Formats: sequence, structure tokens, C-alpha cells
Amino acid sequence: MKVTIKDIASMAGVSTTTVSQILNNKGQRFSEETRRRVLKAVADTDYSPDYFAKNMVQKESKTVGMIVPDVTDLFFSKVIEGVESYLNEKDYMILLCNSKHSETMERKYIKQLQNRSVAGIILASPNAIELEKYMRSCPNMLIDRGLNTREQGNILVDEYGGYYDAVQYLIDNGHKKIGMLTNESGYYEMTDRYQAYYECLLNNGLDYDSSFIEDGPVSIQGGYEAATRLLARENLTALCCGNDQMAIGAYRAAFDKGLSIPDDISIVGFDNLEITAFLNPPLTTVDQPAFEIGYTAAKLLFRAINFPEDQIPNINYEANLIVRASTKNIDR
Amino acid sequence: MKVTIKDIASMAGVSTTTVSQILNNKGQRFSEETRRRVLKAVADTDYSPDYFAKNMVQKESKTVGMIVPDVTDLFFSKVIEGVESYLNEKDYMILLCNSKHSETMERKYIKQLQNRSVAGIILASPNAIELEKYMRSCPNMLIDRGLNTREQGNILVDEYGGYYDAVQYLIDNGHKKIGMLTNESGYYEMTDRYQAYYECLLNNGLDYDSSFIEDGPVSIQGGYEAATRLLARENLTALCCGNDQMAIGAYRAAFDKGLSIPDDISIVGFDNLEITAFLNPPLTTVDQPAFEIGYTAAKLLFRAINFPEDQIPNINYEANLIVRASTKNIDR
Repeated sequence: MKVTIKDIASMAGVSTTTVSQILNNKGQRFSEETRRRVLKAVADTDYSPDYFAKNMVQKESKTVGMIVPDVTDLFFSKVIEGVESYLNEKDYMILLCNSKHSETMERKYIKQLQNRSVAGIILASPNAIELEKYMRSCPNMLIDRGLNTREQGNILVDEYGGYYDAVQYLIDNGHKKIGMLTNESGYYEMTDRYQAYYECLLNNGLDYDSSFIEDGPVSIQGGYEAATRLLARENLTALCCGNDQMAIGAYRAAFDKGLSIPDDISIVGFDNLEITAFLNPPLTTVDQPAFEIGYTAAKLLFRAINFPEDQIPNINYEANLIVRASTKNIDR
Repeated sequence: MKVTIKDIASMAGVSTTTVSQILNNKGQRFSEETRRRVLKAVADTDYSPDYFAKNMVQKESKTVGMIVPDVTDLFFSKVIEGVESYLNEKDYMILLCNSKHSETMERKYIKQLQNRSVAGIILASPNAIELEKYMRSCPNMLIDRGLNTREQGNILVDEYGGYYDAVQYLIDNGHKKIGMLTNESGYYEMTDRYQAYYECLLNNGLDYDSSFIEDGPVSIQGGYEAATRLLARENLTALCCGNDQMAIGAYRAAFDKGLSIPDDISIVGFDNLEITAFLNPPLTTVDQPAFEIGYTAAKLLFRAINFPEDQIPNINYEANLIVRASTKNIDR
């Protein structure tokens, strides 16, 4: 049943006029407490934002900035979809910024977004930046995998656990010569994945060999080039890729070398992009909920905007190994 | 030489105070005509926007709306990257809207964007909408492949020509039983591709058989399902896919059925997404310049915003067949 202005008024214990004035930003004469109760009632229900479509705030606000490292990265486009999906319901719009992984660009964008009076900012960043200084009092949510430590509002994915499971799975299936494609320029906490790879090898009594590692951009082309170098140098039975896009490139590198997957080499990715289930062979990978990450970031930001005094919770997502056909037991 | 506020005042025939007040949105007491003259002087010169960075307009403008059917579609994320890349140089930002292919959403977004005083709108649409009515006087560029006819500012890709070449290539290589995965709900002028398929068959003396056609959403999953149905029903030697994402799904459908590509079936796509060169086997497809389309749309929109009286040119892009390893000559 559609929530009406009367329901909101009743929930907040005020008159409909009060609700109307507060929602139209003409409620300066009401106490912060009253304003808060009304906005909370709106947030708690599905009270239609159509109501204020024509009047309100809209011209300068109802806009949220979103900065991502790469708009064409398949992971981030899913995150954007999640953010958009939540905010659209609330009649908020996204000012999208493509930082190209650059901290300088991020800073520039944060400033530009504030010049446009955004209500808040969602920053998906591979960098640790001096947020206090740059965000000033602008409500914000970080999708940075814990790079910028803060007491609340962290959205974290247990990448370490998920990746560790993937490496352990390879070891349990008889693999000893396991390589990794990584990115040392600090992409998005790939450090966790690398750390999981490293510690899993050691915990299983396997040697860590730095020549089993290759570094490259976290893209299909980057994965292709890094895997080509690594496979030319080392005789591996398995290859852990920093993400799915690198794994797609690694597939091609393996095929170019005449290797069959998984008969000659097992390959695992990270992200569980939709496409990975359709690859030939389907990719064994670690799932992380890109859409939900975006959706949740938007939801928490919305809350931070409307209830600035509330504590924003920390959210932890699991990352689960998805076994498909790109990995094989070589013990038998 | 740097344009100053005095130059603007002199060009508009008003005082510098008037210019300042108008640019700071405190010019309500001036006539629309005065306001217009001042803004025109600003637009006609390279009067530095830094000047108003802290005060002005910026809060409501220097923002362009962009509506796409699907932010996670690989083609559109490249288009967005192109748009962002041009506008970023100009210190403009993008308000991104995800219409989910819905005309109702597009209309809602156009309205919401105008409520936020965007300087212009780029609309990538699979729909023919009553633009005059909805866009009102807002400068706009369409990426709609000619669905909405207009005299200027069309960005067109010769999809028909590119797709015709692909079908002709299959026929020249001995294929007679050629299917197509399409989308009848009107995705983005897939009509052109379908038309090219149809006419190419007839022009080569081949029969058109409607049972060789399957319809589905233009996504990987959609292509997978449509191809699964089609391959279960018909014994084809070649399959033309509506776009690359459908082709990726069709690969999986073929593999599931135990078919080898291209030995048992040739497959072609459309778009030339980066990933297609890395597929197993690499996909024969038709290239269209997604990044350039976005970049050019942004460039022409910028021009339309700043020089509203100028004629905006029509741009035509070619679409070229890229032959890779998913197609095979079956005459030999």
C-alpha cells in the first residue's frame, strides 16, 4: 500500500503541513529533532519521492558523486549499477567520475563534486588519501577495501579468506608449482590476494618463489602480457590471477602457447564476473558481490546524509570460491 | 589574452557589478534579456570559469546528463569512457542515468536532469521518443543510431554495411544455413543488423527461413539461452549474433552441445569489444568505435551548449568486419 504524507505525519507525530514544509526545505523554524523524525519516517518507508519532485532541493542537491578507478572495468560497472539502483529509488542522481586510478584525479574530482554541492560522495579508490582534509564535512562512503582506516562505514570483503581458499583448493588438488599474476602498483588492495597466496603456500610447506610472480595492469590485455611472460619462463601447473579480467587474458596466453586448460594448466580468477561462467572452459574464481557492494554503499551514504549523527555500521562480505572447469586434480 | 569581467561587462553593455551578480545567481532583479546578454558574452569568450569556481553557476551547471540503457553493457561503458574523457578536459561532469532500456525511465531522467539544471544531455537510447517535447530547449546529442530523425547532430554508424559484410563473408565461405540471434524488442537499432542479414541472404539467392532466427535479451545470458534454443532446433553451419555479448553466450551454448567453433559452427558478433580478441577462439566480429562515439557526442554537445546557433554536423562512422578464428570456410 502506498505510503502517504498522512502516514509520515502520523509516524513522526507532526502535522502534514510540517512534513510538507520540512520536505520542501522550508522547515527552518522546526527543531532539528522534528526534522530528524520526519526524515527518518521517510527513510523507513517507501514514501514516494514523487511528492517532492517539483519543488525541492533538487536543483542543487539530490545528487551524489561517485568516483571509480575505471568505468570500463567490469567489476566497477557492476558496483555503479548497484549504487544507481538504490539511489534511483530515492530520486538521487550520480555524478560519475573516472579517476583512471590516479590520486591526483581523485582529489580534483572531490573538489569539483563539492563545488557542485553534492549531498555525498562514494569513492572507490585504490589509493590511501588524506580524506579528512579533502572530504571536509561531506558525507562519504569508501569502497577501498580498508585502505583508508576509519572507525565506521567500512565496506569490506574478505578477499584474503576467499583467495586463500582458492590457493588451498589448488594445493589440495596436487598443485605445487603455482604462479600468480598480480599488480604491484597497489590496485585496490590486491595486497590481500597476494598475501593469501603467499601465506597459503608457506602454511602448506611449499616454497615461495618470486619468479613465479608476474606483475601487470589489472586488465585483459595486462593479464595476457603478464601471463605470456610468466608461461614463457616457468613451467607451472596452476596460475592464480589477480582478477577475472587478468584470467581472461591468461587464458589467451595459455592457448597461444598451445596449453590446454585445465589439462596442462589450471587457472583461477577473482571477482566472479558474469562472463566467467561462459568462458571456455568456465573459470574457477572467487565471488565478490559487486552489485551489493554498490547498493550497500549507496544505502549507507543516504543514511549518512540524512542522519549525520548516526553511527554508520561496518559491513563485511564473504568472498566464496566458485569451482568451475578451469582447475583440475593432478594427483590422480 | 585573458578575458576579464570588464570585457564581459563591456560586451554585454552592463556594469561589472551586474555581471558579477548575474554570474553569482543573485541577478533576479535584472531582466531576462540582460541576463542573456551577459551569459552570451561569457559563452562567446574564453572567460575563465576559475573566476566563478567558488561562487557561481558551477553549483548548478558545468554538468551534463548522460542516459544509457545499461551501465554494465560493455559497449556503453566504453561510450561513457569516451564522453567522460572529453568532458573532463573541459571541467564538466557527467550525471549518469541507467535507463534499463525503458522509455519511461528515460523520460523521468530527462526531467530530473533538467531539474538539476544540466547544461546538456547525451541520450543513448533504444527508443524513439518525443524529444522536442521532453528535451524542451536543453541542448542534446543522441546516440540512437538514427531512431529519432533530426536534421543535424546525428551520430551514425554504418551498422547495416558492417553486418552485411559479415554475412557476405559467411556466404563467400560456403555457408548456406546461417542463423541469427536478434532482439525484437527494438534494442538499439538491431533492426539494421537484422535487415542486413535478411537482404544479404536474398541478394545471394539464399532462402530466408524464420525458424533460423531466435530472439533474446542482448546480454551474455540472453545470447546463451537464445542460442541453446536455436541450436537444439536447427542444424546450422553459421550463427550471426546481434552483438558480441550474445556471441559470448552462443559460444557457451555451442560448447554445451558438444560443437566445436569454428569446425562445427562459425560464429560472428558485433561491436568488437576488447574481450572478443581474447576469446577461445577469438571472435570474428564487426568493429564499431564505442569510445570515439562517446568522445564525439561530448564534443558536439559542448559545442551545442556554447554555440547554440551553430549547425551541429552529422557524423558517420564505418563499421568494419574483423575476421578472426571463429569462422571457417566449409567449401573445402
